[in-house]
Amino acid sequence: MEAVVQLALQAASNEIGKGLPADYIPALACADPTHLAVAVTDLNGVTYSAGDSKERFTIQSISKVILLAAALHYAGFEQVFRRVGMEPTGDAFNSIVRLELGNIRPSNPMINAGAIAVASCIPGSSVQDRFDKVLRYARRMLDSPQLDFDADTFWSESETGSRNYALAYMMEANHVIQGAVPSHLEVYFKSCSLMTNCEEISFLGALLANNGISPRTGEQLIEAKDVRVIRALMTTCGMYDYSGEFALRVGFPAKSGVGGGIMGVVPRRLGIGTYCPALDQKGNSICGLRAMEYLSDSLDLSLF
Amino acid sequence: MEAVVQLALQAASNEIGKGLPADYIPALACADPTHLAVAVTDLNGVTYSAGDSKERFTIQSISKVILLAAALHYAGFEQVFRRVGMEPTGDAFNSIVRLELGNIRPSNPMINAGAIAVASCIPGSSVQDRFDKVLRYARRMLDSPQLDFDADTFWSESETGSRNYALAYMMEANHVIQGAVPSHLEVYFKSCSLMTNCEEISFLGALLANNGISPRTGEQLIEAKDVRVIRALMTTCGMYDYSGEFALRVGFPAKSGVGGGIMGVVPRRLGIGTYCPALDQKGNSICGLRAMEYLSDSLDLSLF
Amino acid sequence: MEAVVQLALQAASNEIGKGLPADYIPALACADPTHLAVAVTDLNGVTYSAGDSKERFTIQSISKVILLAAALHYAGFEQVFRRVGMEPTGDAFNSIVRLELGNIRPSNPMINAGAIAVASCIPGSSVQDRFDKVLRYARRMLDSPQLDFDADTFWSESETGSRNYALAYMMEANHVIQGAVPSHLEVYFKSCSLMTNCEEISFLGALLANNGISPRTGEQLIEAKDVRVIRALMTTCGMYDYSGEFALRVGFPAKSGVGGGIMGVVPRRLGIGTYCPALDQKGNSICGLRAMEYLSDSLDLSLF
Amino acid sequence: MEAVVQLALQAASNEIGKGLPADYIPALACADPTHLAVAVTDLNGVTYSAGDSKERFTIQSISKVILLAAALHYAGFEQVFRRVGMEPTGDAFNSIVRLELGNIRPSNPMINAGAIAVASCIPGSSVQDRFDKVLRYARRMLDSPQLDFDADTFWSESETGSRNYALAYMMEANHVIQGAVPSHLEVYFKSCSLMTNCEEISFLGALLANNGISPRTGEQLIEAKDVRVIRALMTTCGMYDYSGEFALRVGFPAKSGVGGGIMGVVPRRLGIGTYCPALDQKGNSICGLRAMEYLSDSLDLSLF
Repeated sequence: MEAVVQLALQAASNEIGKGLPADYIPALACADPTHLAVAVTDLNGVTYSAGDSKERFTIQSISKVILLAAALHYAGFEQVFRRVGMEPTGDAFNSIVRLELGNIRPSNPMINAGAIAVASCIPGSSVQDRFDKVLRYARRMLDSPQLDFDADTFWSESETGSRNYALAYMMEANHVIQGAVPSHLEVYFKSCSLMTNCEEISFLGALLANNGISPRTGEQLIEAKDVRVIRALMTTCGMYDYSGEFALRVGFPAKSGVGGGIMGVVPRRLGIGTYCPALDQKGNSICGLRAMEYLSDSLDLSLF
Repeated sequence: MEAVVQLALQAASNEIGKGLPADYIPALACADPTHLAVAVTDLNGVTYSAGDSKERFTIQSISKVILLAAALHYAGFEQVFRRVGMEPTGDAFNSIVRLELGNIRPSNPMINAGAIAVASCIPGSSVQDRFDKVLRYARRMLDSPQLDFDADTFWSESETGSRNYALAYMMEANHVIQGAVPSHLEVYFKSCSLMTNCEEISFLGALLANNGISPRTGEQLIEAKDVRVIRALMTTCGMYDYSGEFALRVGFPAKSGVGGGIMGVVPRRLGIGTYCPALDQKGNSICGLRAMEYLSDSLDLSLF
Repeated sequence: MEAVVQLALQAASNEIGKGLPADYIPALACADPTHLAVAVTDLNGVTYSAGDSKERFTIQSISKVILLAAALHYAGFEQVFRRVGMEPTGDAFNSIVRLELGNIRPSNPMINAGAIAVASCIPGSSVQDRFDKVLRYARRMLDSPQLDFDADTFWSESETGSRNYALAYMMEANHVIQGAVPSHLEVYFKSCSLMTNCEEISFLGALLANNGISPRTGEQLIEAKDVRVIRALMTTCGMYDYSGEFALRVGFPAKSGVGGGIMGVVPRRLGIGTYCPALDQKGNSICGLRAMEYLSDSLDLSLF
Repeated sequence: MEAVVQLALQAASNEIGKGLPADYIPALACADPTHLAVAVTDLNGVTYSAGDSKERFTIQSISKVILLAAALHYAGFEQVFRRVGMEPTGDAFNSIVRLELGNIRPSNPMINAGAIAVASCIPGSSVQDRFDKVLRYARRMLDSPQLDFDADTFWSESETGSRNYALAYMMEANHVIQGAVPSHLEVYFKSCSLMTNCEEISFLGALLANNGISPRTGEQLIEAKDVRVIRALMTTCGMYDYSGEFALRVGFPAKSGVGGGIMGVVPRRLGIGTYCPALDQKGNSICGLRAMEYLSDSLDLSLF
């Protein structure tokens, strides 16, 4: 496995120089686009990694998986899917159109509007208490006891987050979310600002591959039925408006973030993390996509 | 003229019983749908009225005309139309779709998004100072020295205004409006909450009919070139998505509000106000439309 | 008047060199973008013209006014407005979106879909018979006994008209139009292919300005109530998605065509025709717009 | 396996009485909504069936899989995906909006527009020749040497197919398809009108499960790389705007048709066919969905 991971890194490194880091906030814009990492965690909890695999970066949209798992855990399937749909959209991640023209609920938990609706389900006595729940759960899901959010990133996300404010108020107008809009956005933005690394997200992939049982402690962290929901939604909606092509070219559940990370899940086999901040037009890490494709081909990982 | 106004009231009263008051806030929902008024102000400043013509009601969207006049006065044509377009849309007054799919600027100053963008142009050292400018200008435009906003209505509008918050944040995301979104919304919501009456809006109509010169004091309150802009926009966009049919059936510039008022302008001839809180599906006062049609037909007021 | 027309031509000629002729069919693409004409017809039927005022060009969308008049004449108001709305849209002239998302009827008779729906109302025993009705009516409306369509243009329009085919079939799917789709398109495309000139369209403008009575023969060619409908719709929808700005800057009913013509109507005063094939992004003749603006300003023609 | 198939039929039969057959053409409307069948074909080519498993019905949208396979076979991946995308949309199967507002190519081969674009890739000297290619390929894919289209259904589909005409002309306007629009629609409508049965579609499922090798003859009918494309697209887009929820609840590639059939593919395990003409709002067979869910749960077939 070590060799394969090394070869995946090499394949991916051929793409270095293409694409650009996200630039809407300073914390992302200053990322080094030549940094690169690949990690695989197997179902025994052993992690094989190559490159800058311990370099920390913001988790961004990969947190949508964590929020969904936390909401299913704390609020339950019914509560969550009363507020968000299960269908892929083909729209951009931040589209507001469908909230007016289509269903009043956001289409799925993997787009911004959907993740904000999911965040609104996390119960708690205060916004602090609610985010603490997410954070504690995230630490276990990523096997990262020191995991925390980056205050600068959080502040920048809030400052530049007008579009997400618009999505949230639109959902309030549609009676999809209740309670103070800014509190839900705080939970959402803090979750996006968690500082993780490539090895940790490969562990999260392995946890989901292992039906929610930690491959290190054997503890059932996520219920098996929730894992199936998460893996299905990652497959149809996890890679922005590249999800369909990713299913076709790579073929397993994955979720990417504009911080440069991609988390892949090969059910009953292994978890994958990749990292490189240079993104394509659709917001996916270019080297990450290449590494995923390499691993899928060489290890025959496609479900299709 | 007195007789004609009386006959218009009579024609309109046949429609009593149709439609319902707006019900999204208590202040509107409790309006009596059988109250009815018609007023005409001529270019000498004489007002002829019939029915409940002194009953106060919230000005609602008719304030869009006042905001536009104030913004043209205080910020100028260039500043205003950098932030808002001049085209009718055929969309509902509160549509957000076009801010994503079409132009990033709102289509025109007569829809909610456009009026919020217009409000954002009003300069001032504080939100209080900015709204004071609007209020002082509105008092002169309506010849109503005691004019003020209703605090309950303002509070209710803010509370239920998620859709308007969404529009405003979407425009912030599009870099159409700058500065604190809540401050612009405060100016907008307070303007919507002004308590006017039917006679006052007929005076505003006459002011606009008289090229911006007060028919009572002879003072030029609005520049003639701004009046032309306002009258054109009222014609193509003033009656929500009934504007086209109104042009065809009635044929002069008008603006309606969900408070039940409609203000009509017959250039170089007279101003008209009507009031009845029962609205049709598109948000226009049913009796008001009937009175406008009656006056247009009997006095041959159509421009077309 | 002769002097004013000459000055309008001069003002317009400053814009020569801007814009390009429509290029989707050869007959339009080969038009000379330096040719220019202005004509005004007064209510006595006298035509004042300057420039290439007898040069023939295809009437294109100005035929939408003729089709509407013919349909109101032969089928009546009820039949027509059962199939088409009265509201401006702000969309491009060939948009199909609203036929799916909005009302199933096209928004108004001045966009392609609307004009095709209007054409479908013209009765007749055959497509030949139906177009003959339109042609005979058009000859009188334009005071042009030899008026005919250009076969090459008609053929090209049909060949490249996929978008219009799509609009028509979509309306058939919505049960808005009935009978053979190709027959309605034939009437529509042939109407677009009529060869007119600047003086003739100024006559059409004068006819509409004169409430439908021919300023030359005194004959009532269009009923007065239909004229009012046409003038209102030209005002809100006649200049594509520039209609709102045209109302504000020029201020009278007008209709433009991508052949380079614009027809203007100043109710109860005069009719205007302009011609220059170089178009702006929205499909309006650039020199034509300038001439219209010049005439409006110097003769104080704005209704607003 | 026989017992499981029998139990699936029983589970599905509890849903009889819900939903209604498609009613847009007589051939579909007169189907008996109480008829029901379940069939499973294993990788040895053995078919286990229960209920009305030999009753013939029109294949409808399941033909989209056959057209895609045929186009990949005869025209190749590049040619096909130059004309159609790979992304799910969340829109209805016959939506035209995205062809104007989004990408000019249809989103994927599993919606009507996409399948028409795919049909336009099938080469041939005449429309007869082109459909013959499809038919011959379909006979082998369904292991059904007598397979043919139903002339009445074809005729009805053509007659009522305005929406599909609109989609096709819109794609011609977008330069996505070339050549005579009616010829592509003929290939498409005839493919939709193929008369198949539940056992045959379970065989098609098994063929796709077996990586394109016929489980009866061992012949490679579809290239393995094409099978992977088809299975991925069926997963993200195969069940109309229920695809996301189907992935979550059932979890394997499937394609449904409004004729009442659903074809399921469990990669490397088995193929499934179900039939019952009563549909839900989204166009999926209600009993068929129940049978699929039962089989997935009891045989643990979900990929997720």
